[in-house]
Amino acid sequence: MRIDKQQIATFNEGLLAGHTKRFEYISSEIDGVEQIISKLIDFQIGIPSWALGAGGTRFGRFHFGGAPATLEEKIEDVGLLHALNRNSGSISLHIPWDVPKDYAAIKKVAADSGIKFDAMNSNTFQDQPGQLLSYKFGSLQNVDKAVRKQAIEHNIEVIKHGVELGSKALTVWLADGSCFPGQLSFRNAFNNTLESLQEIYSALPEDWKVFVEYKAFEPNFYSTTVGDWGQSLLYTSKLGEKAYTLVDLGHHLPNANIEQIVALLLNEGKLGGFHFNDSKYGDDDLTAGSIKPYQLFLIFNELVDGMDARGMNHAKDLGWMIDASHNVKDPLEDLLQSVDAIMAAYAQALMVDKKALEAARANSDVAQAQEILQNAFRTDVRPLVAEARKRAGGALQPLTLYRQLGVREQLIKERGVDSQTTGL
Amino acid sequence: MRIDKQQIATFNEGLLAGHTKRFEYISSEIDGVEQIISKLIDFQIGIPSWALGAGGTRFGRFHFGGAPATLEEKIEDVGLLHALNRNSGSISLHIPWDVPKDYAAIKKVAADSGIKFDAMNSNTFQDQPGQLLSYKFGSLQNVDKAVRKQAIEHNIEVIKHGVELGSKALTVWLADGSCFPGQLSFRNAFNNTLESLQEIYSALPEDWKVFVEYKAFEPNFYSTTVGDWGQSLLYTSKLGEKAYTLVDLGHHLPNANIEQIVALLLNEGKLGGFHFNDSKYGDDDLTAGSIKPYQLFLIFNELVDGMDARGMNHAKDLGWMIDASHNVKDPLEDLLQSVDAIMAAYAQALMVDKKALEAARANSDVAQAQEILQNAFRTDVRPLVAEARKRAGGALQPLTLYRQLGVREQLIKERGVDSQTTGL
Amino acid sequence: MRIDKQQIATFNEGLLAGHTKRFEYISSEIDGVEQIISKLIDFQIGIPSWALGAGGTRFGRFHFGGAPATLEEKIEDVGLLHALNRNSGSISLHIPWDVPKDYAAIKKVAADSGIKFDAMNSNTFQDQPGQLLSYKFGSLQNVDKAVRKQAIEHNIEVIKHGVELGSKALTVWLADGSCFPGQLSFRNAFNNTLESLQEIYSALPEDWKVFVEYKAFEPNFYSTTVGDWGQSLLYTSKLGEKAYTLVDLGHHLPNANIEQIVALLLNEGKLGGFHFNDSKYGDDDLTAGSIKPYQLFLIFNELVDGMDARGMNHAKDLGWMIDASHNVKDPLEDLLQSVDAIMAAYAQALMVDKKALEAARANSDVAQAQEILQNAFRTDVRPLVAEARKRAGGALQPLTLYRQLGVREQLIKERGVDSQTTGL
Amino acid sequence: MRIDKQQIATFNEGLLAGHTKRFEYISSEIDGVEQIISKLIDFQIGIPSWALGAGGTRFGRFHFGGAPATLEEKIEDVGLLHALNRNSGSISLHIPWDVPKDYAAIKKVAADSGIKFDAMNSNTFQDQPGQLLSYKFGSLQNVDKAVRKQAIEHNIEVIKHGVELGSKALTVWLADGSCFPGQLSFRNAFNNTLESLQEIYSALPEDWKVFVEYKAFEPNFYSTTVGDWGQSLLYTSKLGEKAYTLVDLGHHLPNANIEQIVALLLNEGKLGGFHFNDSKYGDDDLTAGSIKPYQLFLIFNELVDGMDARGMNHAKDLGWMIDASHNVKDPLEDLLQSVDAIMAAYAQALMVDKKALEAARANSDVAQAQEILQNAFRTDVRPLVAEARKRAGGALQPLTLYRQLGVREQLIKERGVDSQTTGL
Repeated sequence: MRIDKQQIATFNEGLLAGHTKRFEYISSEIDGVEQIISKLIDFQIGIPSWALGAGGTRFGRFHFGGAPATLEEKIEDVGLLHALNRNSGSISLHIPWDVPKDYAAIKKVAADSGIKFDAMNSNTFQDQPGQLLSYKFGSLQNVDKAVRKQAIEHNIEVIKHGVELGSKALTVWLADGSCFPGQLSFRNAFNNTLESLQEIYSALPEDWKVFVEYKAFEPNFYSTTVGDWGQSLLYTSKLGEKAYTLVDLGHHLPNANIEQIVALLLNEGKLGGFHFNDSKYGDDDLTAGSIKPYQLFLIFNELVDGMDARGMNHAKDLGWMIDASHNVKDPLEDLLQSVDAIMAAYAQALMVDKKALEAARANSDVAQAQEILQNAFRTDVRPLVAEARKRAGGALQPLTLYRQLGVREQLIKERGVDSQTTGL
Repeated sequence: MRIDKQQIATFNEGLLAGHTKRFEYISSEIDGVEQIISKLIDFQIGIPSWALGAGGTRFGRFHFGGAPATLEEKIEDVGLLHALNRNSGSISLHIPWDVPKDYAAIKKVAADSGIKFDAMNSNTFQDQPGQLLSYKFGSLQNVDKAVRKQAIEHNIEVIKHGVELGSKALTVWLADGSCFPGQLSFRNAFNNTLESLQEIYSALPEDWKVFVEYKAFEPNFYSTTVGDWGQSLLYTSKLGEKAYTLVDLGHHLPNANIEQIVALLLNEGKLGGFHFNDSKYGDDDLTAGSIKPYQLFLIFNELVDGMDARGMNHAKDLGWMIDASHNVKDPLEDLLQSVDAIMAAYAQALMVDKKALEAARANSDVAQAQEILQNAFRTDVRPLVAEARKRAGGALQPLTLYRQLGVREQLIKERGVDSQTTGL
Repeated sequence: MRIDKQQIATFNEGLLAGHTKRFEYISSEIDGVEQIISKLIDFQIGIPSWALGAGGTRFGRFHFGGAPATLEEKIEDVGLLHALNRNSGSISLHIPWDVPKDYAAIKKVAADSGIKFDAMNSNTFQDQPGQLLSYKFGSLQNVDKAVRKQAIEHNIEVIKHGVELGSKALTVWLADGSCFPGQLSFRNAFNNTLESLQEIYSALPEDWKVFVEYKAFEPNFYSTTVGDWGQSLLYTSKLGEKAYTLVDLGHHLPNANIEQIVALLLNEGKLGGFHFNDSKYGDDDLTAGSIKPYQLFLIFNELVDGMDARGMNHAKDLGWMIDASHNVKDPLEDLLQSVDAIMAAYAQALMVDKKALEAARANSDVAQAQEILQNAFRTDVRPLVAEARKRAGGALQPLTLYRQLGVREQLIKERGVDSQTTGL
Repeated sequence: MRIDKQQIATFNEGLLAGHTKRFEYISSEIDGVEQIISKLIDFQIGIPSWALGAGGTRFGRFHFGGAPATLEEKIEDVGLLHALNRNSGSISLHIPWDVPKDYAAIKKVAADSGIKFDAMNSNTFQDQPGQLLSYKFGSLQNVDKAVRKQAIEHNIEVIKHGVELGSKALTVWLADGSCFPGQLSFRNAFNNTLESLQEIYSALPEDWKVFVEYKAFEPNFYSTTVGDWGQSLLYTSKLGEKAYTLVDLGHHLPNANIEQIVALLLNEGKLGGFHFNDSKYGDDDLTAGSIKPYQLFLIFNELVDGMDARGMNHAKDLGWMIDASHNVKDPLEDLLQSVDAIMAAYAQALMVDKKALEAARANSDVAQAQEILQNAFRTDVRPLVAEARKRAGGALQPLTLYRQLGVREQLIKERGVDSQTTGL
């Protein structure tokens, strides 16, 4: 299925009067609207291929119809999202599930929808049919050198696929860890993992980055070998300048101050990328902004501040991706909501009155500093985000149009009610 | 496979000298050894049928060989555990996976291994092939009356199977809840669930109990409709005297004082049963006593104290079950370790000097009260537990004998390396 | 110090053009503006006397100037807040610190500022100079009947003061609990506390309520005797229909779903009142809405929904209070910010499209339900709150006017830089 | 008061028969008893001066009699502990409260009791009477350079006192952080703190260490500027080889795996010292081993393993200290219990069968690895700890003797019932 420009234009037409009124209002209320909109248009968020299928928990999974069964269909799905919101212009592949049979053909499919290939994701947290050695007791950390070697080679293979597709980064998320006290030597696990990562690192092309993701717990429930930002930073510092830490919002212990972590990683020049989602208890992988929208704003506030301090390009110098799981929603609807919430938080962060904030901080005027942040957060920025979408050729209200066009029904018609997504 | 008495006797023989020395030592150190041993012998812990297969997480599952593929094989597994430790004399079935084709035949299989049928477990947290209506948005809470009706009927069906097998209780664990703010009306969800439970309750035989289990989160990540002991108690109080709250150690928010909950539920006469396991982060379903053995002891301290205060029979008046998941261990080894840890905690609780404790409390002598509990906990009670097992016909060291007999290897030989357990 | 109407009118005059523009915009965007404003005007939030002084932690306390040193000055402070925002029309006293010497005189002082007397707070969590028996090991739970009696009598004394002042409720927050396993019998602590509360209950005037507050931890660090909403509900159910549970936002374990608790307590007819604040880690007592504004909105969404379902009067049928501590802000500024955040959350909750929400829920349309709540939350309701304040005689921007008038400087001039607040 | 050797000898005499029986039993059960005892004798735990007075919370403090009012009395208290258990041979001072008036005299007092001066502690988390600039908004992080300078100079002053007394380390615990989003720039706070620490570092004598302690939250409730081990490691790595990270058991987010942190810091050569205590919710500062004794053992297991791997001397190469607060116990009793629990955990860690553990790990034999650790933990090592104490001249049962000798009563007689400890 494709959504054509005319469909979007017609839809926008019907909403234009109301939108224009709202946009003019907000434009009269805040400064720098054009600069904000320009940045919003540039901002692109990668969609992970696994988020296009039905998520689930260990207690089961509920199917939905029209799920993408092939890599082509996954790209088609991202193309639909991007057509609607113009901020989802890349896909992040998961190997082995997304191995292209024909690179050129796949690149053509993607190019036709204006989709690029974001960071590549390796998978060593479950065993594939026919796999020689098991990752039951870890991959890059494994006490068995042969298992480590197998996992290293898999990662190098993933890089090769990425090179063919034009990706520029490898994301390594390791489930490695232990479930019981005594199970492993933390020291050896760390040292083995570092050595394994060094081998992968040495296979990175010159213009690539490797993102080392951390996670506090799950699927291991006693320890995780890349368990927090401090551990990730140790690895990436030892690896070298192409290695960066990747932050996933759901991968922390309860009550962690993620925005501070973001600020410190930027200060060290070691923040590489982001996995957006939201959560209440653990790695719940809920829609971005659905539980703690103020936290999402505070994180963007640090991102904007920290990137500006280093002269970084918001749109290009960090890897922006969603990582979510969809248990009770249509994945495409969920992703539209996530992108929308991310754009809103970014817009609010761009609106923060930095000079006033610096002045308040210089005076330790705590109440005033809070007012400044909350002023930005309480501003209704939806007309700005909508305007940016419109200018970029997207829909004023992507979710509404998605439903009006009957996208899901159409996908079910094309792919069937029982189609299954490969991967998770 | 069966383990015969002679194998156990021979094994114990070899360990007898050492054991006797240790048992005599501990007998000379503490009072009331015979009473403690007698209670340890009586204490039986139900094994859930789902804990006999490979557990896993949403990130995957690692297979092990010789898994029980039929209800008969599951009972056989519990029979092996019980032969080894004599404290695992019952199995807790999970419907629909464990529906017996022939009640009499299954009862015969169980009786041959000395195994009884513990509480029956219904399942409305995932959809079964061919199921008419989906539980994607809940079962007993569902906004659709037809879905609720289907779930109620399933529970009544489970009771009927249980009646045939001689079980006396139904455990209702509901995954019902929501993943996003707004998804449901908490009030309606509560009222619907109560009404549904009332229908199930009215189908309970006279001599049956229903256990209403609570859980803070997972698989729903915003709210759970029976989310904590307070909610469970509301339901069970409104249902009537056959309804009780069931406590699973892994089903709480971080840092919850579970032993206090246990004491209060006993004080209200509403504690019905227990699911043992251990955890560090969430419902990790790790081996009992593997992470927080002191907490396990403190819980048993309240159980013993509270049951004694009400004149309850330790072995019979509460439902004792394990609920665990085995991601990196042989399930049977894990269960042997769990039962062992539970028995040790129970033995330590039986050793607490209650008179001294009451005196210390009467004086608010906090340091002394701590000493009294820690004295019991620091005592090495393993010889007591071993002696109880030996007297009951079990092995002095069940795990060691399990390995010496090559039980797993034998099961693989009998069932194959690729056998699959039904259910979770 | 007094803020007169003319000062406010002059201030508002200068902001009127901008305000009118914003208010007209929002009025054109949403339905039912007049109804919302009318409810906002009626809504009054009690200010606790202890929040007017310098808060602190066990690591120390940082002084600020002009702190109210007498009950009269505390009432004066609340009068200043109320003059500015017209939503702070009552004070909640803490005994023994706020014992009036002359009831009539104090009532006159309060009436002059339009301030009423909200729920009275007893204090049995620290020892007062000259106190006969110590609360070191608890008050209403104490193993020593004489200590319990002393604490009961103190509570009855507090009721008497309240009767004289025209208060209609007693809030009982108990620090009672234990710091170490073994220290107390949970059962006896519960039973003693219940018995003590029953004695206090029987001294309640006919038209009074008693609020039983719960708290997970601090200042006791192993157990708390009224530790969660389930325990509080047990007490209040056993006490009778004048007893209600009070929810303080900071008194929960990590990740608790407070809005669900609120909904269930309302469903049981047992929610009595609220202590607003915000927190990230424990009972941090931060400014309401400063950390998790979306949670605050979700709570109000349940409050409005649940109260409407029972035909309750938003403004009168629950006790609304702030409970905060001010370590790094001027307390009066902090309280203005708290009230503002509460009013905004209330306004957003009043805006929720209930019919649409019910329809979405009836279809288990999760994405739509989320949209509906977020639509309300993302709307910039500040012009509504400001309009309500203006109509009630308050300032369009209370904090700005507070600073422009130099209130703190004036208070320092009047009371001195070293004035000390009694109480915490 | 002094406890003389004869009192101890007489006391031990009465317990000798029982002790000898128990010690002989454990000696016959495990290998390497003499080596273990030798290490237990060498192990010394520093007592912080502030733990000798009444602790408390922000809700108040309950007094006890005979509290040490002077530095001499504090040293006397530690001398009493050391006389009883022979494992408390040093005191850790807190400046400004413990500034000696006469170094030589104080050193004499300490030497008479066999007490050394452990790490010195600076204090910049509260304001002292007459202090020029306030730490309300932080010390080493402060936006005001003059405040930073004052805090730097205070730390240098503390080093000077330490040099005079023969201490060899400075512990810097910073309360610095923020209570509200927006309050500070995380980046500037980090950079200011680093710069300040560098100035302090440059004032360190050649043979000194500086310990940079981290803490997740309290007394700041939004962010802490040295908030976790990753941040501390960033500082200590940038500072140089005399800078080390200090771990306090209560300074983590919920569910943190502290033993893994310990192992990684040792692996990096950056673990400097330890503050022992226990907790359930936050920095509860409870008696070591009173809540999670298994965690304490697991930490010691990593300490022993990691130190051995680097050829470190257990007794000398890390700073071992208690950091506790005593709200409901006699501080000296609490400290005796803490030291006892620490010694037990250390003894258990020394007993771990390392070869077997390495073999189990090499085979990913998870069940066996768990058995090995639990075997050590479940062993009743109290006779070993008692024997070590006896050989070193201490009491077989320190707490019992403390009570028999009426130490507290004697201290009350000498110091009065109203004596007040300086400092916290």
